[in-house]
Amino acid sequence: MKVGVIGAGQLGQMLALAGHPLALEFLFLDSSPDSPGARVGPIITGKFDDPASLSKLAADTELVTYEFENVPVSALEKVSRTRTCLPPIEALRVSQDRMLEKELFQRLGIPTPPFRSVDSLDELHAAVAAVGLPCVLKTRRLGYDGRGQQYLRRRADIDTAWAALGGAPLILEGFVKFDREVSIIGARSTRGETRCYPLAENQHRDGILRVTRAPHRNARLQRAAERHLRRLLDHFGYAGVLTIEFFVQRGKLIANEVAPRVHNSGHWTIEGAVTSQFENHLRAILGLPLGDTSAIGHAAMVNYIGTMPDRERVLAIPGAHHHDYGKSPRAGRKLGHGTVVSTTAAGRDRLLRRLLRHVPR
Amino acid sequence: MKVGVIGAGQLGQMLALAGHPLALEFLFLDSSPDSPGARVGPIITGKFDDPASLSKLAADTELVTYEFENVPVSALEKVSRTRTCLPPIEALRVSQDRMLEKELFQRLGIPTPPFRSVDSLDELHAAVAAVGLPCVLKTRRLGYDGRGQQYLRRRADIDTAWAALGGAPLILEGFVKFDREVSIIGARSTRGETRCYPLAENQHRDGILRVTRAPHRNARLQRAAERHLRRLLDHFGYAGVLTIEFFVQRGKLIANEVAPRVHNSGHWTIEGAVTSQFENHLRAILGLPLGDTSAIGHAAMVNYIGTMPDRERVLAIPGAHHHDYGKSPRAGRKLGHGTVVSTTAAGRDRLLRRLLRHVPR
Repeated sequence: MKVGVIGAGQLGQMLALAGHPLALEFLFLDSSPDSPGARVGPIITGKFDDPASLSKLAADTELVTYEFENVPVSALEKVSRTRTCLPPIEALRVSQDRMLEKELFQRLGIPTPPFRSVDSLDELHAAVAAVGLPCVLKTRRLGYDGRGQQYLRRRADIDTAWAALGGAPLILEGFVKFDREVSIIGARSTRGETRCYPLAENQHRDGILRVTRAPHRNARLQRAAERHLRRLLDHFGYAGVLTIEFFVQRGKLIANEVAPRVHNSGHWTIEGAVTSQFENHLRAILGLPLGDTSAIGHAAMVNYIGTMPDRERVLAIPGAHHHDYGKSPRAGRKLGHGTVVSTTAAGRDRLLRRLLRHVPR
Repeated sequence: MKVGVIGAGQLGQMLALAGHPLALEFLFLDSSPDSPGARVGPIITGKFDDPASLSKLAADTELVTYEFENVPVSALEKVSRTRTCLPPIEALRVSQDRMLEKELFQRLGIPTPPFRSVDSLDELHAAVAAVGLPCVLKTRRLGYDGRGQQYLRRRADIDTAWAALGGAPLILEGFVKFDREVSIIGARSTRGETRCYPLAENQHRDGILRVTRAPHRNARLQRAAERHLRRLLDHFGYAGVLTIEFFVQRGKLIANEVAPRVHNSGHWTIEGAVTSQFENHLRAILGLPLGDTSAIGHAAMVNYIGTMPDRERVLAIPGAHHHDYGKSPRAGRKLGHGTVVSTTAAGRDRLLRRLLRHVPR
């Protein structure tokens, strides 16, 4: 069976690496012919919304999925007329718009920060009054890794924020002084079977994920996160892997965003869980039984941003795994990641400190 | 870095799957263009001893390895004039000839069954008298998975055995009434670092490996096997993964054969060890630090011979992993394997029994 993947970045590559043992074949669509996926499957070089490329992808595969959430919904709708596209397009549509996302969270009883839609400077003033300070002004669409965001500490920041982002559809969200950030990843298959991974704790810098540690053991938070995740999965009649990122504030989860795909905060599952998020995404969209999502010991994942660490030093760390996406270095670019796994949380933290010493900051 | 691999069977495919995260690229040489490796790297279609194909492989890669031990030594010698070939050719040469192999075992103090070289019917009679009955007559070269062997129970079997195999260079070996079969896999890097995996217990049928269970916990046997393995590794100035298969008779190891490559009895290491044999083979030939060879829990691997089991039933087993090499079915052909891992040996054995129920015999 041949699976079409829109996007041939590292997520696409890791999907293919997980799928080859299941005798799946892959065909990628990406604008760059030397994307990481190109080394593990053929690639159609074209834009994500190019009708000819999308038609070719649909014609040459039996099922289409995506690894990149900024695929235009209209493009995917076109593909879906001739080929099954999973996860469902509606999940993609909601995740592409922070306002739709927050409204859905609210409708499903998933706690969110206070938020208001903002389309004018007047609306921004009113929204700041309603939401309170500090708060964050964000573009509703096409924001990722911290781009398209303005932090407002005082009313005087309103004009600066508006100058930076005004014109695009915006959302103002209350700033959450969180104690930590966590994410939950779950899979739902086309048959409705659902499995959740243990919570992972994430550390961001400049809006980009730096470190994930998992499992984040907190039975109460785990239950709450799974409840929220299952509501979303069932709401969408979802198939595939879905991720929710939460803030934890005074012991409570506040949903930040949803990603209808395999997620950077789940890379630890390759070596740190019985079944990886990548394999479970494929099992889910193919309607196969889902794999065990239990953690094997305690894992930490470090993103390599802009510069790769010395491979030899990383591999010299006991139990360390090195993932080099083969991309050319560029500031702020995710070039690879490293994972360490230990039988204890303290052992994991020791290995993590050792790994971090080799990672350029 | 691009690694050339002679042979694009499942071992080559699994090498590439382990190497892609290290940003390695692969180029295969195989006589069949639709071999399993072809889905994870480009393939030069040609015979293993075709000078033009070998030259192309050497020219287009930075390091050459092999996944198939019947590569002609002369072909590899030609490649090695322009490109580093690892594991060392001498290890390949010895492993291709059961007589050289047994003589080396003997020289290094590694116990073997009694054996004699046989090149004529007269020599066979003399060898049977020296070695004793029962015994096994084998071709010295090109035997694998039980092919090219004749079992001799009585002196009357001598003529039948000679009729079947006579003409080729032969070896007569004493038949070992073993209690079990085990194998040890180890890696030695170009820098001389050495690591051994835990012993695995193997069950063969019709000369083909059916089931491996690991780790086979026996501290005394483990120490002895590691001692034997390290002697071989050091003797060859080895780089890469090497496997020794042993019989266990009355608590003692008797070496059966050596394979200078990743090995079927090490497939469990993909999910059942911290670092897989495939990744460690690559680390070893690249001179990188070797990965932790410890077992993660208790694993069992079942080969799928001739017929694949139902994928859904296998994947429904908790913690089961399915490996389909994508080959067309044929009697006696290795088409795939399944692995189960549990935290206890008893749990592993329960999962193994469940898996075996779905595997056509």
